[in-house]
Amino acid sequence: MRLDVVTIFPEYLDPLNVSLVGKARAHGRLDVHVHDLRAWTHDRHNTVDDTPYGGGPGMVMKTEPWGEALDTVLADGYEDGAHGPVLVVPTPSGRPFTQELAAELSTHPWLLFTPARYEGIDRRVTEEYARRLPVYEVSIGDYVLAGGEAAVLVITEAVARLLPGVLGNAESHRDDSFAPGAMANLLEGPVYTKPPRWRGHGIPEVLLSGHHGKIARWRRDEALRRTTAHRPDLIERCAPAAFDKKDREMLSILGWAPDPEGEPHGRFWRRPDDVEE
Amino acid sequence: MRLDVVTIFPEYLDPLNVSLVGKARAHGRLDVHVHDLRAWTHDRHNTVDDTPYGGGPGMVMKTEPWGEALDTVLADGYEDGAHGPVLVVPTPSGRPFTQELAAELSTHPWLLFTPARYEGIDRRVTEEYARRLPVYEVSIGDYVLAGGEAAVLVITEAVARLLPGVLGNAESHRDDSFAPGAMANLLEGPVYTKPPRWRGHGIPEVLLSGHHGKIARWRRDEALRRTTAHRPDLIERCAPAAFDKKDREMLSILGWAPDPEGEPHGRFWRRPDDVEE
Repeated sequence: MRLDVVTIFPEYLDPLNVSLVGKARAHGRLDVHVHDLRAWTHDRHNTVDDTPYGGGPGMVMKTEPWGEALDTVLADGYEDGAHGPVLVVPTPSGRPFTQELAAELSTHPWLLFTPARYEGIDRRVTEEYARRLPVYEVSIGDYVLAGGEAAVLVITEAVARLLPGVLGNAESHRDDSFAPGAMANLLEGPVYTKPPRWRGHGIPEVLLSGHHGKIARWRRDEALRRTTAHRPDLIERCAPAAFDKKDREMLSILGWAPDPEGEPHGRFWRRPDDVEE
Repeated sequence: MRLDVVTIFPEYLDPLNVSLVGKARAHGRLDVHVHDLRAWTHDRHNTVDDTPYGGGPGMVMKTEPWGEALDTVLADGYEDGAHGPVLVVPTPSGRPFTQELAAELSTHPWLLFTPARYEGIDRRVTEEYARRLPVYEVSIGDYVLAGGEAAVLVITEAVARLLPGVLGNAESHRDDSFAPGAMANLLEGPVYTKPPRWRGHGIPEVLLSGHHGKIARWRRDEALRRTTAHRPDLIERCAPAAFDKKDREMLSILGWAPDPEGEPHGRFWRRPDDVEE
């Protein structure tokens, strides 16, 4: 996979040399190019922004440097033999970045990131490139950053660990929170390692039982417990069929009940507050 | 504000020297300390992880190095005159990090981050420190990273820009996506700057009208348009009173209607798919 990042803070992307992404680069699985947007300015002050049309606070990133930068980066990539570029624009106004979207992005051979600063990039830049390549405007969460660079690190890391051969133990995906399959809508429960006693805290006995079935059940119960506590929205979205008999017993202990009026666009499960005795 | 980060990849936190956070440090508004967890190991291999109790793939971070690290970092901070520490544990199993939570964290004088790798940290570490300080287990989004370091960069940036005096123009907060107030549940629409024409693309005429009322209305309509397109979930959560007459006209043009059965725990607005003629 080829990655290009155009930014006014190239050094913010230094973590792409570290850890998992750094190793993927060293092993040739990722070909990363970070570019300084200011290389495509032509004035003495390397200006990349100007005041917004219509007035208001903040500055807007100008079309011209972005246009020149993207043209050059695309041409260079094609010349290197890269193909199938997609534009990834981190913005709080985008569609939510999810594990599913990470998996989708991981199937593309070439991602080109345009992290913005200030109030964002002049709209015409995405309009122009959307004529030529797929554009993903993505938001990594419901909060505001100072710029898109941190989002690029997040997206790159989530995507890179899904590439074949990047994660040491392929099995490590299986029990991840948000992993497709049985855990699709559940958060992982607690984990423990040696020693068995630390500062007065023990570990749940079942983990020492050697009984695989009981351990799997305990883990799933803890996942249900944690998900109901931290992310009731995930439980509400689960179709009743997502839970087996034991899951339902646990959900019932936690005070939850299936919603008799549950339908595809609404919720299927009701929280303790809504459940009448 | 004091920030401590304990990690096995200290260099991943180098972006804390860059841009907004870097400037806040230079101006003395942020006091950042990054610590290498392996400094608190005592074996030849600087071991920080071991196999999980109960079996399964992946490794779990051990209690002892984390316990020693947190004790030392807390003692050093108190000695420096810091007070009121809170523990921030990035984990996909946590509660969602939102702009509201960023604002809450920005009121604390001292944040101590524990970004984990592998399958996470032995549960007993958070149990132990939760006896002494507030603990926030937070997830920056519904995706899985290789470690918590990228999440620390995200949280730090979102929090730092809310600190007094850090963002140049205080007004720049006002129209942010997710900003409290009128934009609380709306995404920002498109922005434009000079030149008025670029590669055949013009700009919306209203922005050149000089008519502040019309410009404000256009911006709000574009915010509604973008939010319905990218984040219908945000519109569904808005109480009917959140929208004025003109907002309702625009929502109606976009095919939305108030849900006659809307109530506090459900949705208030119905998407085009659900609206009968």
